[in-house]
Amino acid sequence: MLEEAQERLMKIKMKEETETVWVTEALGRVCAENIYAVMDQPPFPRSPLDGYAVRSLDTAGASRENPVRLNVIEHICAGMYPKLKIGPGEAARIMTGAPIPEGADGVIMQERTDEGSDSVEIYQSVKSYGNYCKKGEDTCRGALLMEKGRSIHSSHIGILSSQGIETIPVYSVPVVAIMATGDELVPVGTPLEPGKIYDSNGPLLAARIRELGMKPFLLQRGGDDTEKLAEEIRKQLTECDALITSGGVSVGVRDCMPYVAEALGADVLFHGINVKPGSPMLAMIVEGKPVFCLSGNPFAAAATFEVLVRPVLERMRGRAQWKPEILLGILKSPFPKASPCRRLVRGKIEDGKVWLPEGRHSSGMLSSMAGCNCLVDIPAGSGGLKAGEQVKVMLM
Amino acid sequence: MLEEAQERLMKIKMKEETETVWVTEALGRVCAENIYAVMDQPPFPRSPLDGYAVRSLDTAGASRENPVRLNVIEHICAGMYPKLKIGPGEAARIMTGAPIPEGADGVIMQERTDEGSDSVEIYQSVKSYGNYCKKGEDTCRGALLMEKGRSIHSSHIGILSSQGIETIPVYSVPVVAIMATGDELVPVGTPLEPGKIYDSNGPLLAARIRELGMKPFLLQRGGDDTEKLAEEIRKQLTECDALITSGGVSVGVRDCMPYVAEALGADVLFHGINVKPGSPMLAMIVEGKPVFCLSGNPFAAAATFEVLVRPVLERMRGRAQWKPEILLGILKSPFPKASPCRRLVRGKIEDGKVWLPEGRHSSGMLSSMAGCNCLVDIPAGSGGLKAGEQVKVMLM
Repeated sequence: MLEEAQERLMKIKMKEETETVWVTEALGRVCAENIYAVMDQPPFPRSPLDGYAVRSLDTAGASRENPVRLNVIEHICAGMYPKLKIGPGEAARIMTGAPIPEGADGVIMQERTDEGSDSVEIYQSVKSYGNYCKKGEDTCRGALLMEKGRSIHSSHIGILSSQGIETIPVYSVPVVAIMATGDELVPVGTPLEPGKIYDSNGPLLAARIRELGMKPFLLQRGGDDTEKLAEEIRKQLTECDALITSGGVSVGVRDCMPYVAEALGADVLFHGINVKPGSPMLAMIVEGKPVFCLSGNPFAAAATFEVLVRPVLERMRGRAQWKPEILLGILKSPFPKASPCRRLVRGKIEDGKVWLPEGRHSSGMLSSMAGCNCLVDIPAGSGGLKAGEQVKVMLM
Repeated sequence: MLEEAQERLMKIKMKEETETVWVTEALGRVCAENIYAVMDQPPFPRSPLDGYAVRSLDTAGASRENPVRLNVIEHICAGMYPKLKIGPGEAARIMTGAPIPEGADGVIMQERTDEGSDSVEIYQSVKSYGNYCKKGEDTCRGALLMEKGRSIHSSHIGILSSQGIETIPVYSVPVVAIMATGDELVPVGTPLEPGKIYDSNGPLLAARIRELGMKPFLLQRGGDDTEKLAEEIRKQLTECDALITSGGVSVGVRDCMPYVAEALGADVLFHGINVKPGSPMLAMIVEGKPVFCLSGNPFAAAATFEVLVRPVLERMRGRAQWKPEILLGILKSPFPKASPCRRLVRGKIEDGKVWLPEGRHSSGMLSSMAGCNCLVDIPAGSGGLKAGEQVKVMLM
């Protein structure tokens, strides 16, 4: 069962390493502690517009025909601090963002006055606390600004900066090593001999890991030799937090990953999942770190990465609560193939409609992954799907 | 009109600077030329499974009761190349990913055989080209792999790597300078005197620009002095591709950006838009580069950035076709306030449902931006919106 495999993976113990970074450098990192407001925001009652700070009572009944005349006792621009208290019959000229002086409980928009300098004619009344941004109206000191385990977005950086907060504790970024195995693979930049292909799983998985905010570490491709692979994996695990291989997990004569697991004395969490593609996947713990051995087929590797590897990596980077986003959508393209086994199919969901790359679903197909943004989850026993049917999709 | 302002901005001439980068470093960049496949993928007919390459005719009628016996003339692992051609009565042992030898037009899964080494018993027939991945089945040489103007995702990096493509031409990343203005602002890390506030627009806009894949460049905050600001802007424009200011665009006595525009001899594209918040926004061309002067209110700056600045920056980074994603959603929280003028309200859309941060909409409010992922577009003349109404939203 896929769910059983997922559960086993969720039991992996994570070491929680944290570090402190500048807020301005924290974009995309995961917050490692609850962060609370250190001050009221705004730190003083603030005028939301350009006008006159007044006592609301003084403006009662004011109109263009019956203006109220007030003495302007001070001019307050943003950045200044009022020196005087507003008494009866008094007002202060005030600009957007400036502190409202004591005694005043409202601001009249300058367009509703004669814009006088020493005294002003008021043409409209204002309610008590009208046009008055209260101290702490946006955030009260002590309010929760940012929850532990949340990704830091640009809005959080604005909010933390408004509080004068300079640094923030975040989880360390996991380093994930990637090793494509298979004697058929050659790295990009070398000539292609007959029978060989360029490694695409390594660069694709590395880019995906970077896309998710982690540090990929692309290893030289591994061959198909059990002892050498085991040795290489053990060595690399000292440099990374998790390791992903692709290829060599199936039943072919050179599919050595199961033997590598044995040679490593690994704690095998599972070998084989009842979902297509990627069913031969193997997951193990070596030296306390997770090692994921994916199928060598590009789409199989990509799909099992999303459903089984990503949740572990998200947790590793501090997102303990992370779950894939599951949506329902209406299939716009048919998927006529029957699925005796549960099947994940690449697709594109847009505004509730799900499109499939027609006839290009084989797990060896790479090019049709471009533009896809979800996996369609087809239950075991499906006799094929028609356009118009509702499907469950997982966002990538 | 907002649309008129957007149109004027779309007429800004862009210089198209490109550079060549390693494919493995191209994540998030924008492709600057159409990229075509340089070879067929797979480069040879390939076995999708572990089994035996056969002539399909030879397997006609084969079953467990009436097996067909074939001579195994070669063993082909992935990475090897077949030396022999399959003749009548012959087969080759073949592993997943290995080239299918000439003469064979199908592969029998090993589970449907006795897995013999020198000869094999076949228990099932195979159709012509059954279990046979044709040369070029994934991608034909010359096929369009990646369109000019598209963002490069991890799947593209996989696809380009599978072709052995090492480098890719991309658009240069725009450098965007950000300058918050206003005498009330102090940078994070300095003590807060009465009447002052910490600058949040600068860090927020810088982080947003980084989120969008561009290079922000956060300047020291500017004061409210026209001459000094004009001089500073002219100087900074030699170092960046676009410049954004916040504050000083309204009608207050210290709102000097309109005078700065004059002092710079700028080509003012517009000053004022009929949308709330951020209506005093000013946009101009100085030294051939766009300068956006946003309101100092945090949400006003953020909203006008999304609707008016981002489209220009996306075009600048090469995404000529970029458009904001517009969705329809069902409002789950009411917005009782009437809107004589068109209004943008922050919200969160999830699976077609739109939630608003209740009562926390004022353009001076920053904290309620956390968790929002869209702008709700409320048309002029709205008397307020009830929960259950359909609304148009723009994804952020």
